[in-house]
Amino acid sequence: MKKINGGITTPLGWMASGVHCGIKRERLDLALLYSERPTMGAVAYTQNRMRAAPVEYMVARKNNDIRAFIINSGNANAITGRQGFEDAQKMAELTAEALKLDVSEIGVSSTGIIGRFLPMDKISTGITKAARELARGRKADHRAAQAILTTDKVIKEAAMQVKLKDGTVVTVAGMAKGSGMISPSMRVQHATTLSFITTDATFTSPPEERWQEVIDNSFNVINVDGDQSTNDISAFMANGASGGPPVDDNDKFWKAVTKVAQSLAKQVVTDGEGATKLIELKVIGAKDSADARRAGRWIISSSLVKTAIFGADPNFGRVLAALGNSGADFDINRVRLTIGTGDKTIALFENGRPQLAPCSEGELAARKLLSNRRIIMTLDLGVGKGKAEAWGCDLSYEYVKINAEYTT
Amino acid sequence: MKKINGGITTPLGWMASGVHCGIKRERLDLALLYSERPTMGAVAYTQNRMRAAPVEYMVARKNNDIRAFIINSGNANAITGRQGFEDAQKMAELTAEALKLDVSEIGVSSTGIIGRFLPMDKISTGITKAARELARGRKADHRAAQAILTTDKVIKEAAMQVKLKDGTVVTVAGMAKGSGMISPSMRVQHATTLSFITTDATFTSPPEERWQEVIDNSFNVINVDGDQSTNDISAFMANGASGGPPVDDNDKFWKAVTKVAQSLAKQVVTDGEGATKLIELKVIGAKDSADARRAGRWIISSSLVKTAIFGADPNFGRVLAALGNSGADFDINRVRLTIGTGDKTIALFENGRPQLAPCSEGELAARKLLSNRRIIMTLDLGVGKGKAEAWGCDLSYEYVKINAEYTT
Repeated sequence: MKKINGGITTPLGWMASGVHCGIKRERLDLALLYSERPTMGAVAYTQNRMRAAPVEYMVARKNNDIRAFIINSGNANAITGRQGFEDAQKMAELTAEALKLDVSEIGVSSTGIIGRFLPMDKISTGITKAARELARGRKADHRAAQAILTTDKVIKEAAMQVKLKDGTVVTVAGMAKGSGMISPSMRVQHATTLSFITTDATFTSPPEERWQEVIDNSFNVINVDGDQSTNDISAFMANGASGGPPVDDNDKFWKAVTKVAQSLAKQVVTDGEGATKLIELKVIGAKDSADARRAGRWIISSSLVKTAIFGADPNFGRVLAALGNSGADFDINRVRLTIGTGDKTIALFENGRPQLAPCSEGELAARKLLSNRRIIMTLDLGVGKGKAEAWGCDLSYEYVKINAEYTT
Repeated sequence: MKKINGGITTPLGWMASGVHCGIKRERLDLALLYSERPTMGAVAYTQNRMRAAPVEYMVARKNNDIRAFIINSGNANAITGRQGFEDAQKMAELTAEALKLDVSEIGVSSTGIIGRFLPMDKISTGITKAARELARGRKADHRAAQAILTTDKVIKEAAMQVKLKDGTVVTVAGMAKGSGMISPSMRVQHATTLSFITTDATFTSPPEERWQEVIDNSFNVINVDGDQSTNDISAFMANGASGGPPVDDNDKFWKAVTKVAQSLAKQVVTDGEGATKLIELKVIGAKDSADARRAGRWIISSSLVKTAIFGADPNFGRVLAALGNSGADFDINRVRLTIGTGDKTIALFENGRPQLAPCSEGELAARKLLSNRRIIMTLDLGVGKGKAEAWGCDLSYEYVKINAEYTT
């Protein structure tokens, strides 16, 4: 299993394009993803009950074997009522027509501002253009990955290759977007980060359970602002173009998928709106992994924790206050909170009491560690063997700026 | 029933003081509240499982008839282990000694930074001074209300008078603090906003249920940053000094108490860290009042809603996206969201679709309304008769500044 420099069209049989259709003023705003062969897959959607029209459409059509995905940015087509649903359906129909596929094989996804109707004339022209420009290779990868961005500063891609026992090499690659309204809690069949993972591996049945497990250990443990989106979607699509044996229960293969998803998820929080730091929180010693996840998500969602980390302030009390609100079990006399790794680990709290006196050398060292761009914290809850990771970002002046001026 | 210009010592038989003992560099940091007569009351505490030492102490002693309250600011005595508990107990003992009361009659409360031990020598000297300076009148009210503040910019006070049927006039007054770590969810017997309400009315039994009801309609519907504190406490203390008949079930009296608590709660969010605007959200048409409260709390807690309002951006999609995450029932075809009141009401969303076209005159008018310092929003969920209010504030650059630099 190895990490490779690749994108969404690196797996065999996949093509992509990214065009400007005019939803945004200048930047690319419409991406198309296409497999030359039929696929088998699994799709997870947001659990927000105010689901966007494209999500409603996708859930209603009940087919997760998606051969082509049309994705626009700049407009979420969310909270747009019946017209929104019809527009999502129309996007699928136009794409099916352009690619000579059945409409049931088309996936639709939107991201951007909520509550505005899609400019269907522009999208219609755009779909024709996107179908014409489908291509393979890094340029196509980059244009597609660019076209799905909103407030993101950079594109998010990841790719891995796995050699199966019979010698077949299969490739897994993905692209994602997401910068704000990031607090995903996606369930397969019923996940605003958008993520699309392609592979040329072979499947004999839809990998829903395994895909949920991947999401629960990647996209579902990240948080930028605590607001779960109306549009989250995370799609896994396999077209079997590599040949070779099925990978349904191949742990090595799923490890590669997990690595791709985790890389994308970390790229999303690193590019979180206004983020200056990536926070990696490891929760250990929890009652079980669900409790560890609960504590982790709650802590990285706390505005007070996020602003303290922006300010490089070793204010561990805010972390423990957030733990107290999470509902997770802990034993305060066994709770241990450290920052850093290896030689540079500094304990902020253990044995039931704070470890760093104000203005002590230890506190200065902690401040220095907190000035890095990557903050590693480990929190032992002291009650069991459950563990989980959660990834977040700090809360900066820039976050407020971006969100106070979003539609202006 | 009338609103009066009064404070914590306006009800008969109540005295207060506020002194500087040295926890903070210069400002007042220790308040004492004292009743000349025994009291009957109810106290609500935070539901954060990481409860501060003074809260643990108060819950353990199980006496809500509190005749004197000692309250320090600048240090929360939270997550300080066994030593913290002993320090809280010591504060009570020192206060009992200074006032010649039994220790069971003393309440203790702390607010400020988490995870530091109290400077007990300074507090000991401060308690002696505070006991000596106990007084009645507006100056004493103000010094006590000042001494409990942390990042607050202004003191919070409210007072009402009620004339009972027999002609007795009873007074209810309160003081509160709270600016950050404000997302209270207090339960009687087991409420960082601190609030203390005094009255000279007479009771025959502890008013726990009525007090919970007051809190559920005041402090428990406000939110600054979504982080429930380790130290929240809300105490109601009645000393009967007015004479007159008992008010246990006197609705007029409880209406006055509710008005005092609501006034204090709104003062807390108006002074929320970095707040430039007060948001008053009325949720109507909900399945029941609990569902209305759930929707209200979730929406006013959303960072995306708060930053949009800071930017005067009529981005109603964020409000409805937050509704979708709240778990409250709604019928999207009957949901109606308006801003403003009376003649100046503007509908942002109704009949299943957005009402304002981008850059339309209506949108400009909405932006103008959102530039006020008091934002009134009404959200009809379209499924029932449940209603509730929730009060919050916007999220500004100043919020980030205050919290990135808190301990520095």
